[in-house]
Formats: sequence, structure tokens, C-alpha cells
Amino acid sequence: METILSSKTKTVIIGSDRPFTIIGERINPTGRKLLAQEMAAGDFSRVEKDALAQVEAGAHVLDVNAGIPLIDEPAVLAQTIQLVQSLVDLPICIDSSIIEALKQGLAVVEGKALVNSVTGENESMEAVFPLVKKYGAAVIGISNDEDGVSQDPDVRFAVAKKIVERVMDYGIAKEDVIIDPLIMPIGAVPQSGREFFKLLYRIQTELGVNTTGGASNISFGLPNRQGINAHFIAAAIANGMTSAITNPCEESVRMAIRAGDLLAGHDENCMTWIKANRKPGEGRRRRRTTE
Amino acid sequence: METILSSKTKTVIIGSDRPFTIIGERINPTGRKLLAQEMAAGDFSRVEKDALAQVEAGAHVLDVNAGIPLIDEPAVLAQTIQLVQSLVDLPICIDSSIIEALKQGLAVVEGKALVNSVTGENESMEAVFPLVKKYGAAVIGISNDEDGVSQDPDVRFAVAKKIVERVMDYGIAKEDVIIDPLIMPIGAVPQSGREFFKLLYRIQTELGVNTTGGASNISFGLPNRQGINAHFIAAAIANGMTSAITNPCEESVRMAIRAGDLLAGHDENCMTWIKANRKPGEGRRRRRTTE
Repeated sequence: METILSSKTKTVIIGSDRPFTIIGERINPTGRKLLAQEMAAGDFSRVEKDALAQVEAGAHVLDVNAGIPLIDEPAVLAQTIQLVQSLVDLPICIDSSIIEALKQGLAVVEGKALVNSVTGENESMEAVFPLVKKYGAAVIGISNDEDGVSQDPDVRFAVAKKIVERVMDYGIAKEDVIIDPLIMPIGAVPQSGREFFKLLYRIQTELGVNTTGGASNISFGLPNRQGINAHFIAAAIANGMTSAITNPCEESVRMAIRAGDLLAGHDENCMTWIKANRKPGEGRRRRRTTE
Repeated sequence: METILSSKTKTVIIGSDRPFTIIGERINPTGRKLLAQEMAAGDFSRVEKDALAQVEAGAHVLDVNAGIPLIDEPAVLAQTIQLVQSLVDLPICIDSSIIEALKQGLAVVEGKALVNSVTGENESMEAVFPLVKKYGAAVIGISNDEDGVSQDPDVRFAVAKKIVERVMDYGIAKEDVIIDPLIMPIGAVPQSGREFFKLLYRIQTELGVNTTGGASNISFGLPNRQGINAHFIAAAIANGMTSAITNPCEESVRMAIRAGDLLAGHDENCMTWIKANRKPGEGRRRRRTTE
């Protein structure tokens, strides 16, 4: 299964036989008061910095969200997307719960974007799928529906299945839906880790689509969240997760992703791991001895 | 499945519904030149320190190995075991490839020990199983046989199966065998991580026995081994590994085990994680406000 995204000139392939895909989460004012204030006031300097920093840190796709209360979200989202794609050449993940914002975002985005997101609610699918089809995008399907988020992983799987089946009714290819089976905080749902790994396996083998998730949800409410997140991300990659919406600017996340790719057998000749962990000057020294 | 070990007064239960069991690996002169020299010269001060430090760091069982060339290994192993159990009250894992050393170790060990190890070779099973039965011990079965170590995980599974079936012929309970399916270095066998996780699943579901492994094998030959080992251990625990022979004195290993237990749903109310990550004084401060 391969989900192909693109920017103006670059292609990103999300797939189970390849290195993990990092969807950079930073351009999102939710929970970032200062960013929200600045964006509302028309100051996008922090967005620019976050875009460049995430690319530098290895992001493959950038999530863009403009969910700020009392602003014209569709207009600001479109403006932010245009700004980001003027700076960096990466596929965009258009992130909004407002249909009009997704529409205006899709209208300005270059290449093949990822829409974040549709749910298993009929109203959501009926509004989002035609847009995804019209603009030739891909879409993240989140495993909740009219009954909310179920703590029962079997119910969340059933919702995922419904989304995958329904997307095909709209003429959208199955590989263009990426399922987020929802990561429950382990502090509230003790079996959440193992349940998530089982869901990854079922979504891969029974539905045959790619997966994603908000990895940091796992540690909500617990101390040393970075420690939990890092081990969780590596384990999730080793168990088949193909992408995540996360922060590549944290070294612990980058190391976890490299370790996960290594454990999943997706780091050819271990070159990514070796390069990232080479001591400064080691490469040069070695070269000199052969000259 | 539960494997019960004991020391003079303490019981340790290895099982898939419980927190992970740490078998401390430090009392082993293999690859530790100084320790080997000291032990050969009758100086056991480092053994004492390593025993106490591992207990302090959270080891549940201590591996004891006296594999030093040109010494009387059986006598030194027995002596080391007696020393260790005079200092700490933990079950012992008697570690030798020499049958006479296992025998002398079993003769002096208190409680129910773990024998490390038997292989799938007929000669090994015929020599080790009668000892395990006679002394009422448990045993680690390593997945290699007369044909050596296979890179094919299906062959290693078949060897594990043979060991589990054969142990029962000797009147030893199945739960008293712990399988080490062998962790291949990812630098040599790129799919080693995923293959190991699959083996864990098959050994649990098809053979119904506990598992262990030399966790640090995974990173052999690669830089930043601690980084790989930590993510691997957490992922392995989340995938059902019930014990490992490892070094609890490394904080990255301890954190990985706590994270693995959390992801496996084996940390009740997340208390172990929370306690380990509480900031100094935090517990006291909180108490004061309620006084």
C-alpha cells in the first residue's frame, strides 16, 4: 500500500515497506497561545521559522492548522498554506475541522495534499469526500463517528473499516485514505499501547491501508512525556505504523523514528542510523586514510 | 504462563501478565578483562559491587557466570554463587556452557534457580534436563541446535518447539522452560527486529512459554548501541517479551523497561512510571499541602 503525496516538485510516498513518514505538527495554534495571538494579528514570522525548522529536522510533510477562535479560519488557513509553500517544497497536510477551511486550503495548495481529516460520521464523509475527490487529494480518516470515540478498539476498527469502504464509493482510491485509529492516553486506558499495536496490524492486514496518529496522545497526563512518546513511536513503527503527526524538532522523536525504522527493517544498510550517530569528523578521518 | 523462581526467602514470578523481569547480566567476566583477572586471582570485590549495584538498580534475578579460560570454572562458579547469595536475596541464574559447572552451581544455590542454558542439541538436552529435574530448577532454552544458529526465524521456532516438547519428557513442567529465540544483530540481519517480535508472538501463542534474550545483541556493530537497545527493549516488552538478560545499571535500560511495561499495560495506575519520573521533593511538597 502506497499513499503518494506531492508538493510543487517533490513526491512523498507513505508505505509499509519504506522509512517512516514524519508529518510535522508545529504549525498549529491549538495550545500555542503566542502563535495564536501572532497569527490572529497577521504576524506569520513564527510560522516561517517553524516551517524551516521542521524541514531542517527531517519532516516529510507539513501539517498546517489555523484553528484560532474568532478569526476567518478559511482565509487564514489558505494564507498560511500559501506562505508555507512559498518557503518550503514539501507536501501539505491541510488541518481543519471546518469544511470551508479545507475547501479554501485545497483551492490554493500545490501538488497532492493530505486532508486532515474526515471522521466516520456520515455528515463528515458526505462533506469531505467530494472535496478530496475534486482536488485529487488524500485524506486522514479518524476512527470516531456519531457515537464519539469508543474505548473499545473493535469499535474503532469497525469505524475505520466503514471509512475505507465509503471512500471507494466516491471514486477515491483506497490507498488515498490513511487511518488514524486513535491513540488513547495510557493514563486513562492502561491497555492502550497493546491495543493500538493490534489495531495497526488489523488495519494493515484486513483493510490494507496506511496508518497515522497523534503520537503524543499516549502520554497525556503523565510525567516525562518525551520518554513515553519516544519508546511508543519506535514500538509503533516496528509494529507497522507508517506515519505520525509529530514534532521532528525534538531530538528524542527523531532518534525514536530512526530506531523504529531500524527495528522495522526500513533503514537500508543501517545508513540513516549510522550517519546520525557518527561522531563529528569521523567520516572525514576515515576518508583520509584511504586517500 | 508463569515461571516461578526463588532465592532463600524471595519469590520472583516471570509471566506475561506482569511487569517485566530483569535478569542482571553484570556478573560475567566474558568481555570484562579486569573482572576476569580479578576473579582468576581470587578477588571478588567487583562481583560484590556488581551484585549490590544491580539489586539497587532493580534487578529481579542475577545472572552469575565464571567463564574464565584456564580456571576451575565449576569451583569458581559455585564460589561466586555462594558469595552473591550471601550478599543479596535474589534468585540466581546459573550461567555456564560447562555441564559440571552447572551441576556444582545447582548444588550450592539456594531456592529455585534458573539454568542458563540448554540448546536444542541432543547432547545438551540429555545433559542439562536431568540436572534441571534433579534440582527442581527452571531453564533457558536457546534456539540453536546441531546445525548452529539459523538466520531463518522459522527454523529457530522449530528448535524452540523441540526444546519445549523434550523438556516435558524429563518430567519438567513446561512453564519451567524460558525460550531465548535469539536476537540477531540488525547490522547483519536487517529484518531481525520484526522477526524477533513475530517469534515472541508465536512462542507465546503456539508454545505458551515465557521468553528472554540478550537484548543488546540487536545493536552489535552499530554506533549508539544504547539508543537502539533502549527502543528495542521497550518494543520487545510491548510485543510480549517477559524477561531479558540486561544491565539495569544503565538508566536508558531502566527507562526503556518502565516504558515497555507502560506500553504493555503492566504498570498498574502508571505508578512505577510516575514514581520514577517524579521531580525531587514533589512527593513531599504535595503531602505538605494536605497537612
